[in-house]
Amino acid sequence: MQTFDWNRLSKQEQADALRRPALAQGGRDAQVADIIEKVRAGGDAALRELTRTLDKVELERLQLTEEDIAAAGSRVSEELKAAIELAIDNIEAFHRAQLPSPVVLDTKPGVRCELHYQPIEKVGLYVPGGSAPLVSTVMMLAIPARLAGCERVVLCSPPPVNDAIVYTARRCGVDAIYSLGGAQAVAALAYGTETVTKVDKIFGPGNAWVTEAKGQVSGDVDGAAIDMPAGPSEVLVIADESADAAFIASDLLSQAEHGPDSQVILVTPSRALAERVDAALAEQLAALSRADIARRALAESRTFICDDLAQAVAISNAYAPEHLIVQTEDPRALLPKLRNAGSIFLGAWTPESVGDYASGTNHTLPTYGYARTCSSLGLADYQRRYTVQELSPAGLQAIGPAVELLAATETLDAHKNAVSLRLAKLEKQA
Amino acid sequence: MQTFDWNRLSKQEQADALRRPALAQGGRDAQVADIIEKVRAGGDAALRELTRTLDKVELERLQLTEEDIAAAGSRVSEELKAAIELAIDNIEAFHRAQLPSPVVLDTKPGVRCELHYQPIEKVGLYVPGGSAPLVSTVMMLAIPARLAGCERVVLCSPPPVNDAIVYTARRCGVDAIYSLGGAQAVAALAYGTETVTKVDKIFGPGNAWVTEAKGQVSGDVDGAAIDMPAGPSEVLVIADESADAAFIASDLLSQAEHGPDSQVILVTPSRALAERVDAALAEQLAALSRADIARRALAESRTFICDDLAQAVAISNAYAPEHLIVQTEDPRALLPKLRNAGSIFLGAWTPESVGDYASGTNHTLPTYGYARTCSSLGLADYQRRYTVQELSPAGLQAIGPAVELLAATETLDAHKNAVSLRLAKLEKQA
Ligand SMILES: [Zn+2]
Ligand SMILES: [Zn+2]
Repeated sequence: MQTFDWNRLSKQEQADALRRPALAQGGRDAQVADIIEKVRAGGDAALRELTRTLDKVELERLQLTEEDIAAAGSRVSEELKAAIELAIDNIEAFHRAQLPSPVVLDTKPGVRCELHYQPIEKVGLYVPGGSAPLVSTVMMLAIPARLAGCERVVLCSPPPVNDAIVYTARRCGVDAIYSLGGAQAVAALAYGTETVTKVDKIFGPGNAWVTEAKGQVSGDVDGAAIDMPAGPSEVLVIADESADAAFIASDLLSQAEHGPDSQVILVTPSRALAERVDAALAEQLAALSRADIARRALAESRTFICDDLAQAVAISNAYAPEHLIVQTEDPRALLPKLRNAGSIFLGAWTPESVGDYASGTNHTLPTYGYARTCSSLGLADYQRRYTVQELSPAGLQAIGPAVELLAATETLDAHKNAVSLRLAKLEKQA
Repeated sequence: MQTFDWNRLSKQEQADALRRPALAQGGRDAQVADIIEKVRAGGDAALRELTRTLDKVELERLQLTEEDIAAAGSRVSEELKAAIELAIDNIEAFHRAQLPSPVVLDTKPGVRCELHYQPIEKVGLYVPGGSAPLVSTVMMLAIPARLAGCERVVLCSPPPVNDAIVYTARRCGVDAIYSLGGAQAVAALAYGTETVTKVDKIFGPGNAWVTEAKGQVSGDVDGAAIDMPAGPSEVLVIADESADAAFIASDLLSQAEHGPDSQVILVTPSRALAERVDAALAEQLAALSRADIARRALAESRTFICDDLAQAVAISNAYAPEHLIVQTEDPRALLPKLRNAGSIFLGAWTPESVGDYASGTNHTLPTYGYARTCSSLGLADYQRRYTVQELSPAGLQAIGPAVELLAATETLDAHKNAVSLRLAKLEKQA
């Protein structure tokens, strides 16, 4: 890792040191637009053709049958099923605790105002393919959908869909599983085909094609909303002299192995700790199966030596990390000062991997600085809020004159008239 | 209004009848990008120059002084101040009731998961100019910002900023008021200048320039997030034979006077009522100061005669209206079936104008069908959710083995290792 003395950097150098690399746009816009257009025009047939061309797979069926699903489940080990069960248990409990209560309030006698929550009707989940089955992604996306009450929950994953993904999807209540990946899967979810349900909102990570497609369909009101903007995964660790260097190295490597563009930052007032972490990194790195990826990410990683923990907090708040790990003598003491982080891991016994898999929190988090305004994924993302109001005659009489005056001030006569007409009728009745 | 028998329309005609007109994009992209670039490069000087060129105003100061604000307040009538006070009282009460409680849950003994809320640090409010001072917009945007705990709340409105806007902004706790409008105001809020605070999120309505600028800055992580996508305002009224035609006509006209592109829809099983509403519209229209605008909107407006209220509900759910007015014998009976509406107004004594101004609900609502996935503006839009977790040694021992197996399944060795290292250390200590 590159090490910098934070206070020896100029303001501009500090800003540059916290700047994320520009996202490769890759000029996929036109190709993705073309794929989307093909799916809208050609439906299932286009999906088969695109899967043949892009995934080199001849699809017999777009959607898994009940037999496919049962067979996949029978091939998953009991040991893995038990681990999935434990994770589901915790994720369900924490997301169920997020179920909101409506607000019902009479702001004046006879002026009832209400805030209600309603599930988004149909949601689509995208789970990337590849050699490793992302069962955690299935759990993190599907469990809140079901708890929120979405009427239909469907899932796309590139063919052949991994058994563990199929098993977990069914276990988490997914209604339909499609063997579809890439931009064509996003297009199918956004616009629907003969087989694929058109959904209102699409959730989940993906490669640059998926990200570009999500961007395009979310810009079209006839398409679908999306969960959040995408960017490379990242961690920032705040540590002091008391921290275990091996633990910290293992957490930094957890992040680094996600991909060569992973962002990994250590902030500490202790130069000695930073040196111990460097040594531990070298030691642990050798044993990793994804050592190459991790090594490339670490080459871009940074350690900042700062004055004290207060400065470490300020650096973290400015960076706005997706994951924030705090390994200090009293980590909870820092919590009230921490801002702009997606998820915070407190103390030596809370590695980031517990949140990725099984503590109960959601691992879908805002990256790339979006944590300043975006939230960690939760039940709220699967629901919408709307308001209701109901006035009695007395309620309208209480606030009507103020409404009339405000409407008149804004030169909206008809708005005023809608109140005046009613007040006149009430007066006549009295 | 054009009247259609819903059940005489083909499926395609029904879909077309509920389709909103395409939004005029107007090719402003390049011009807006140019304005944004000028503000980023030139700061305050560019803002003065753009205001000179575009607004034809020579700005002495970009920001109102305390003296300006006091003077503006002194010119607002006591009567209007009292109406504003009543509205603030209700809006504050309803938004204060939305303050969330954190979730703290041990998903297993020693596995603590928490969901917390935190205000977005800096927010910018945009209030359009023009002949009428939109004091309601100031209240709807500023009150939740203050209640949410945002550290800095600033407001832009085109010069000269109306006295009532200035008074209301100060009354609602806005920290700084800038005499700025259009795309240049949005750019200043998104990137900051010598005088204008850079904000994290921008709220508020605006013309096509403002909308395009909000779109552009929200696509840039160094820019600012925005409240919601924009579209013309709209109302859908569900009414039965029992409804007062004059009331309904006044509500339809309230919507129609917002602009010639306002969407106005009446859905009723009663042809007789539809005819009475048409007559009432003609009668009321004549007296309106904005009759021309309303007339243009009404020319595009539609009445659908349907079989029964269940079908009326289905039509409304498919349209996903910003405002939904229900004037039936038992309006609350329909509530559980209503979906995808921004705000719902129940019964004869609840004209839409009460929600626009003073009932307490927010008048900033999703338009253009976005109500299927977007929420009515509320306190939640000024806060972000983030999670915290803290495991004890026992907690890690409880879930660690499952995490190890899940990480191994996803071939993420370092993730597994971060747990294994810690479990080994605990075993050694025991
Ligand atoms: Zn991870
Ligand atoms: Zn209105």
